[in-house]
Amino acid sequence: MKTFAAEFIGTFWLVLGGCGSAVLAANFTSEPFIGIGLVGVSLAFGLTVLTMAYAIGRISGAHLNPAVTIGLWAGGRVPASTILPYVAAQILGGIAAAAVLYVIATGNGSDIGGFAANGYGEHSPGGFNLTSAFVTEFVMTFIFIVVIFGATERDRSREAFAGIVIGLALTLIHLISIPVTNTSVNPARSISQAIFVQGWALEQLWLFIVAPIAGAILGGIFYKQLLRKTDFSADDLNQ
Amino acid sequence: MKTFAAEFIGTFWLVLGGCGSAVLAANFTSEPFIGIGLVGVSLAFGLTVLTMAYAIGRISGAHLNPAVTIGLWAGGRVPASTILPYVAAQILGGIAAAAVLYVIATGNGSDIGGFAANGYGEHSPGGFNLTSAFVTEFVMTFIFIVVIFGATERDRSREAFAGIVIGLALTLIHLISIPVTNTSVNPARSISQAIFVQGWALEQLWLFIVAPIAGAILGGIFYKQLLRKTDFSADDLNQ
Amino acid sequence: MKTFAAEFIGTFWLVLGGCGSAVLAANFTSEPFIGIGLVGVSLAFGLTVLTMAYAIGRISGAHLNPAVTIGLWAGGRVPASTILPYVAAQILGGIAAAAVLYVIATGNGSDIGGFAANGYGEHSPGGFNLTSAFVTEFVMTFIFIVVIFGATERDRSREAFAGIVIGLALTLIHLISIPVTNTSVNPARSISQAIFVQGWALEQLWLFIVAPIAGAILGGIFYKQLLRKTDFSADDLNQ
Amino acid sequence: MKTFAAEFIGTFWLVLGGCGSAVLAANFTSEPFIGIGLVGVSLAFGLTVLTMAYAIGRISGAHLNPAVTIGLWAGGRVPASTILPYVAAQILGGIAAAAVLYVIATGNGSDIGGFAANGYGEHSPGGFNLTSAFVTEFVMTFIFIVVIFGATERDRSREAFAGIVIGLALTLIHLISIPVTNTSVNPARSISQAIFVQGWALEQLWLFIVAPIAGAILGGIFYKQLLRKTDFSADDLNQ
Repeated sequence: MKTFAAEFIGTFWLVLGGCGSAVLAANFTSEPFIGIGLVGVSLAFGLTVLTMAYAIGRISGAHLNPAVTIGLWAGGRVPASTILPYVAAQILGGIAAAAVLYVIATGNGSDIGGFAANGYGEHSPGGFNLTSAFVTEFVMTFIFIVVIFGATERDRSREAFAGIVIGLALTLIHLISIPVTNTSVNPARSISQAIFVQGWALEQLWLFIVAPIAGAILGGIFYKQLLRKTDFSADDLNQ
Repeated sequence: MKTFAAEFIGTFWLVLGGCGSAVLAANFTSEPFIGIGLVGVSLAFGLTVLTMAYAIGRISGAHLNPAVTIGLWAGGRVPASTILPYVAAQILGGIAAAAVLYVIATGNGSDIGGFAANGYGEHSPGGFNLTSAFVTEFVMTFIFIVVIFGATERDRSREAFAGIVIGLALTLIHLISIPVTNTSVNPARSISQAIFVQGWALEQLWLFIVAPIAGAILGGIFYKQLLRKTDFSADDLNQ
Repeated sequence: MKTFAAEFIGTFWLVLGGCGSAVLAANFTSEPFIGIGLVGVSLAFGLTVLTMAYAIGRISGAHLNPAVTIGLWAGGRVPASTILPYVAAQILGGIAAAAVLYVIATGNGSDIGGFAANGYGEHSPGGFNLTSAFVTEFVMTFIFIVVIFGATERDRSREAFAGIVIGLALTLIHLISIPVTNTSVNPARSISQAIFVQGWALEQLWLFIVAPIAGAILGGIFYKQLLRKTDFSADDLNQ
Repeated sequence: MKTFAAEFIGTFWLVLGGCGSAVLAANFTSEPFIGIGLVGVSLAFGLTVLTMAYAIGRISGAHLNPAVTIGLWAGGRVPASTILPYVAAQILGGIAAAAVLYVIATGNGSDIGGFAANGYGEHSPGGFNLTSAFVTEFVMTFIFIVVIFGATERDRSREAFAGIVIGLALTLIHLISIPVTNTSVNPARSISQAIFVQGWALEQLWLFIVAPIAGAILGGIFYKQLLRKTDFSADDLNQ
């Protein structure tokens, strides 16, 4: 129950903070302010993970993302029984956040438009086709999982930095790929926006479920086979 | 006395740095410079907390915010006797900073306009109504308190990161919500600006006292009931 | 000798990185790039200190600033005999960096204009008068020294963060005050630019020596009298 | 083999993240988004190193850059036998990333133009001549190596911060020097872009191999001769 509450509130914050900053502040240019743009949205997504990693990491590990949970399973870090309850909490937390964001965002008389939904082709912010979108989501999630595995390896002095590293990895992923797909790498984030936007967002949703999960599974296997630390040297323990 | 001095100087810095960056630099676009915009103001608010957490955290805990002090009390972290002296120091420190900012900001012949006061309805930067403003301030402070509780749980290796995590949580909150209310989540910050702006800022001040404190109280109770770590495992101690 | 080399190369980097980013990149808007603006310059100044704190901190303490060395002396942290050699290395390192920057910046046929010199009145970026400028430089350096003292107090788990905290404090100071004085808080940085700009920059240089040093001295005394940790509790040692 | 895989995937990420953010997002200004500009690209390059330092640092040291490997050899930190396999993995990883970026970037019908290739003279973003470009690349890499040596000196409490410090050093270098050369300091990064751009990028490639490596060698020698810690004090061990 505590784990469920942690993943729920954590993914709630990821969607409210990340998608919220995109919807409310990215293009806000009313005087005397310049909107936060893509740099601000990228920072916001990363900081949701960074803050939750330290707030709830000790409870649930702060996955906040079905692809992460599945990738950790593929790499042998968590048991298969973790997947269902984690993913359920993540999807519900994301939808709850989207509902709160809907209430806030419509409070100045505007409609939600495309919200912060993910898309490709004519719904890609920069008009990138399905191939570009799939490759982007696949590769970004692949590397994201490799970073997550590496940063959380048991190591007395560095393990405490994992929340900073993983959060900033998500910032980096957004700095690269918002123009291509509006950046997902997280099915729970995509689902939460698509059910409010309906139409094209639901039709294109499959890609933002399949590509991140495929990238995460391959990333987990790649790390396990090629990069995993198999034994501790005295050096590590004495650092 | 040392605690009072710490909270005073800390909140002084929060208001001078956060509101000061908004008033002096957010929209500054005189050649050869581009103003700091919403990203810069968000960073500035967060960095005031980050810097003070390490500068005075060991003396007073660096609350710098009446809602934080009350939320920590609601979650059972500090005794009720802390509230009055802490809140007094925070409000006085904030007002002192607003006075210094007034001297600096009027030194080029301009008036302070809306300073960095918080508002809703026609005084919301993005024209968001009272409901949006209240929900935003309530939810942002709720999560802020959850992050504060989680990041300061006793844990040898991670506790030292709390100042970074909490500071960046405040940056994130500003990245999301400046367009809605100019972002308060801190009654001392709102009071300090409203007494210089007068009029509408004083009339709307109630929301920026009530909503953050209500969010903080609920956040403290939520953390205590659902997320609090109740016992240490050997694993934590050996990290 | 090793200490001198450390302060020389450290202040070289502060001026080359901080002033260099301002001169070369702040207003750079040639396609396909948007210049770094005030946020970028603020980050750059802070990151010069952050990087040097970890690179040479163990050798010289990485003061990189005459006001910091004098403030640390005023607060009883370093002996008076430190001041002369440190300040000499800082000024020489700053001038060397300004010379390198001169070579780079004039390599596209442009002249250096105001370089990144500090000024007030008609040479304040935002037209702020002498009073605003003096108050700003004084208060910013005062708080900077308080943060430096607090962040470097002996404390097993937090002391290692000092370089991040102090670097980001300098970023924050720039986010607030570039429009007022182009931000100094560091006489070595101001001197290095003024001797290349000549004229008004040399005439106004006194303020950027007097105000930061006065603020630093008061900051050192304030910390020592009101905030200094006088004894370690068992709690600190066991963290 | 594990080391090769680590340097390959790490440099893959450096080029895909750094050059990818420049190509895809730097100048992206389609509504409702403002492109990431030079600040975003600078952050992206730094975060590729920061994330990989914690993900694969324990395996290969995360050099990700032939100049870094050679500079570490010049300063006596790694044996000469490291150079060839590391540099091979770095160059191949960079080219693989450029190929993936090519697929993504051309997926909206645009051509790659200058990609993120480095240049001087008429191919310098700000029109800086060969002298400015050489001095810039030389000095930036020189300081980069000094920071790398200093931040990785054996020291119980600070060594774990090295990934953050070195990553942000690369961000700082980009904040200063993108207008001059588009910033290389890394021959593998320059090679990966030049072989796709061909023509002028290949003709000018020599500078982005020679200047960074020369700066790195001098930096390694400078650190070894003037700044290296020669013995540990009890103080360091007890921190």
